[in-house]
Amino acid sequence: MGGKVCAIIGFGPGLGAAYAEVFKAAGYDLGLLSRSGASLNGAEPTGKTVRTYRCDAGDPDSLKSSLASVQSDLGEIDVVIYNADLAQFGAFEDISELQFEQSWRVGALGLFATAKLLGPQMSERGSGVIIVSGATAALRGNVWTTAFAPSKSAQRTLANSLAKQLGPKGVHVVYLIIDGVIDTEDTRTNFAPNESDDFFIKPIRIAEAALMLAQQDKSAWTFELDIRPFGEKW
Amino acid sequence: MGGKVCAIIGFGPGLGAAYAEVFKAAGYDLGLLSRSGASLNGAEPTGKTVRTYRCDAGDPDSLKSSLASVQSDLGEIDVVIYNADLAQFGAFEDISELQFEQSWRVGALGLFATAKLLGPQMSERGSGVIIVSGATAALRGNVWTTAFAPSKSAQRTLANSLAKQLGPKGVHVVYLIIDGVIDTEDTRTNFAPNESDDFFIKPIRIAEAALMLAQQDKSAWTFELDIRPFGEKW
Amino acid sequence: MGGKVCAIIGFGPGLGAAYAEVFKAAGYDLGLLSRSGASLNGAEPTGKTVRTYRCDAGDPDSLKSSLASVQSDLGEIDVVIYNADLAQFGAFEDISELQFEQSWRVGALGLFATAKLLGPQMSERGSGVIIVSGATAALRGNVWTTAFAPSKSAQRTLANSLAKQLGPKGVHVVYLIIDGVIDTEDTRTNFAPNESDDFFIKPIRIAEAALMLAQQDKSAWTFELDIRPFGEKW
Amino acid sequence: MGGKVCAIIGFGPGLGAAYAEVFKAAGYDLGLLSRSGASLNGAEPTGKTVRTYRCDAGDPDSLKSSLASVQSDLGEIDVVIYNADLAQFGAFEDISELQFEQSWRVGALGLFATAKLLGPQMSERGSGVIIVSGATAALRGNVWTTAFAPSKSAQRTLANSLAKQLGPKGVHVVYLIIDGVIDTEDTRTNFAPNESDDFFIKPIRIAEAALMLAQQDKSAWTFELDIRPFGEKW
Repeated sequence: MGGKVCAIIGFGPGLGAAYAEVFKAAGYDLGLLSRSGASLNGAEPTGKTVRTYRCDAGDPDSLKSSLASVQSDLGEIDVVIYNADLAQFGAFEDISELQFEQSWRVGALGLFATAKLLGPQMSERGSGVIIVSGATAALRGNVWTTAFAPSKSAQRTLANSLAKQLGPKGVHVVYLIIDGVIDTEDTRTNFAPNESDDFFIKPIRIAEAALMLAQQDKSAWTFELDIRPFGEKW
Repeated sequence: MGGKVCAIIGFGPGLGAAYAEVFKAAGYDLGLLSRSGASLNGAEPTGKTVRTYRCDAGDPDSLKSSLASVQSDLGEIDVVIYNADLAQFGAFEDISELQFEQSWRVGALGLFATAKLLGPQMSERGSGVIIVSGATAALRGNVWTTAFAPSKSAQRTLANSLAKQLGPKGVHVVYLIIDGVIDTEDTRTNFAPNESDDFFIKPIRIAEAALMLAQQDKSAWTFELDIRPFGEKW
Repeated sequence: MGGKVCAIIGFGPGLGAAYAEVFKAAGYDLGLLSRSGASLNGAEPTGKTVRTYRCDAGDPDSLKSSLASVQSDLGEIDVVIYNADLAQFGAFEDISELQFEQSWRVGALGLFATAKLLGPQMSERGSGVIIVSGATAALRGNVWTTAFAPSKSAQRTLANSLAKQLGPKGVHVVYLIIDGVIDTEDTRTNFAPNESDDFFIKPIRIAEAALMLAQQDKSAWTFELDIRPFGEKW
Repeated sequence: MGGKVCAIIGFGPGLGAAYAEVFKAAGYDLGLLSRSGASLNGAEPTGKTVRTYRCDAGDPDSLKSSLASVQSDLGEIDVVIYNADLAQFGAFEDISELQFEQSWRVGALGLFATAKLLGPQMSERGSGVIIVSGATAALRGNVWTTAFAPSKSAQRTLANSLAKQLGPKGVHVVYLIIDGVIDTEDTRTNFAPNESDDFFIKPIRIAEAALMLAQQDKSAWTFELDIRPFGEKW
């Protein structure tokens, strides 16, 4: 319990794994929270420096209980990355009220619960970082984002509100506007099977940006930055 | 059941009453939905042209049931004004998870339920108007808008998504960015007791703008406009 | 010199003519400024209630001189509509430094000169309206808007700055985000020859919105609204 | 002429010097352009790896001539940092047409001239970085930003347009939204003499962010990020 601790909410293949790889390489102990309780590259789920937790980010009690376990297992959380997302897409006729609510629970309520638990602790210590994996849908609605845009925009203005509350206390809140398709086995297979390498964002590059932001000096903090592949039309 | 019908969700003193007055004067029959079941200026709650309904905008079943009653009592709804709002303000330590959820239910889920019920009907007729009373908090979070900003921004991007889905089918969705304090007995007494008349937005003027927007020709529709008093700092 | 006076900078076929028609019908005397000195529907260019002036909106001296003539001919200007625009499109290799500058002169410098002349007078009277025909390009740059976006965004933030300076003095500044192709003989022939009626914004509808905004009560002013055809993808 | 070359337009005490320090430490040869022709820490102005040039960023011919000299002296420019700015503040009555124009020349026209010269070369090589020192005033106008906001917003949407044109060709355009007062001898003395250290942004931290952005992998480029001190109200 000596190193810095990074908790990743919404660990899984793709971006979650990239965050884990980059922050581990930077010396952080990791608490990995996911619905499935997946571990990192087949590693022991209860290792000394990397531990995995099964939880539902859309359920505040489950989430706060897992974050408390991270703290008792690894120590105080220095960086928390909120990467949970349902990413449900559809026109309003296709989205049920339950789906609409679940999107919001995982996108916004879980971030609120995270802040309720960790915000006061980080404020008291005068340091801490909260990074949120956001999306362009946070800025506007489109035809297929009936559930996704409201969830992401609620998440973004919550992060914005938290940044203004916690910033003066030394806690850095960051919102990443990820604008493009992340390169994962799933997106390569199911979402964009015919696209070339250049079409995708490499998740490791997003994680590197997150690490840089987590290390910014407090005289020059970034709240929001966009990330997209060089050839993206936007 | 011959005239045009306007349903106002979130009827009450202030802006709700102003919408009712302006749309009634323009010849609309009114269905007034509120938590208290309040009526218009002491009028008969089950009149031929103005009827009142008790419902909870944050409960989709209650809301849809009341909207269905409006339709069976007064006829097809031509204009629906979504004016429900909890307006809970506070730092993240002061807002409970329940309050955070209730804000979202009344701000965003209720609008979604409204669209689920009325969107398909309006699309089929090729006409209809959905007007939402929004706020500047929809665009960004601030220190005291931990619950309010996420609720309003979810509402705004949902309205934006609906506008893009329903517009091509002839249904006009409008989002009002109300930027200032509305002149009501409550705000005069409790929120800004020492301010002069110039400080407040007159609710009747917001309602007039809404009526104008409801009457726009479909070659030149407005999705969003801001409204504030002339002396407002912004 | 008894009625209200509206000066239209950038009068011409399409939107300029629509502004003239709508404000004339509302009882305004008109001062019509254009590069060609065109008159309204072949009317006498020096009539008692409608007068035309030849000027270059990108040349502050020319513009201010013409506006002064409007005032000596028709009386104090109550409403000024800034509708001048070069609308030059192209990639950065295709746009010359001269074109880049001309776009800015007509889009932004002319509005500044207008405000320098009329702002103090309107402030002193405690009333007046400045309406600007803007565009979505004011909000972001795109591939073909190397010259147009910088011109329109400069225009928009200038209007925003003026609104905050002049608003508390009773002068209403409005920025119209026109998002779509205006229906004119030119756009029908040259820009979008194969589009149906539904593709275009009817200029008269934009002018009607402008008139409504010019008449807003000062307790509920709009600075910005968007206008687009119902089927527009955005 | 073997190392990478960074040209800094608008070199001077404060942020310009910080860019120079950070990019020099990262191994770049430097071409420093300023109105005064100032050199770096009293160094020889015509050294092998750092050279200084006198030019007016608001004059396209002067600017392009100096950039051409950088290239003949040091080699192809890999990174150009556009840091020129007049930063003139005032209400519209206080700003002359000449000042309004000069602000735009230095803020927007100079960036356009830079892109006209370097854009095609960078496109042909398939690499290059253009970083612009922007400001929050690029997003909206305020009472004192009659000249500054139009200049910065024109600069931002130009950068945005260039990013979309040059990105697919491998050239990375970045816009920094600097939101706060930079710590310099001038701002400490004249602008905010009574503020504590925490009030200011350390220029070296902005330059470090710029370096990180210049090194982003092209699968995950950032166009825009904001930078402000942790205690800033925004």
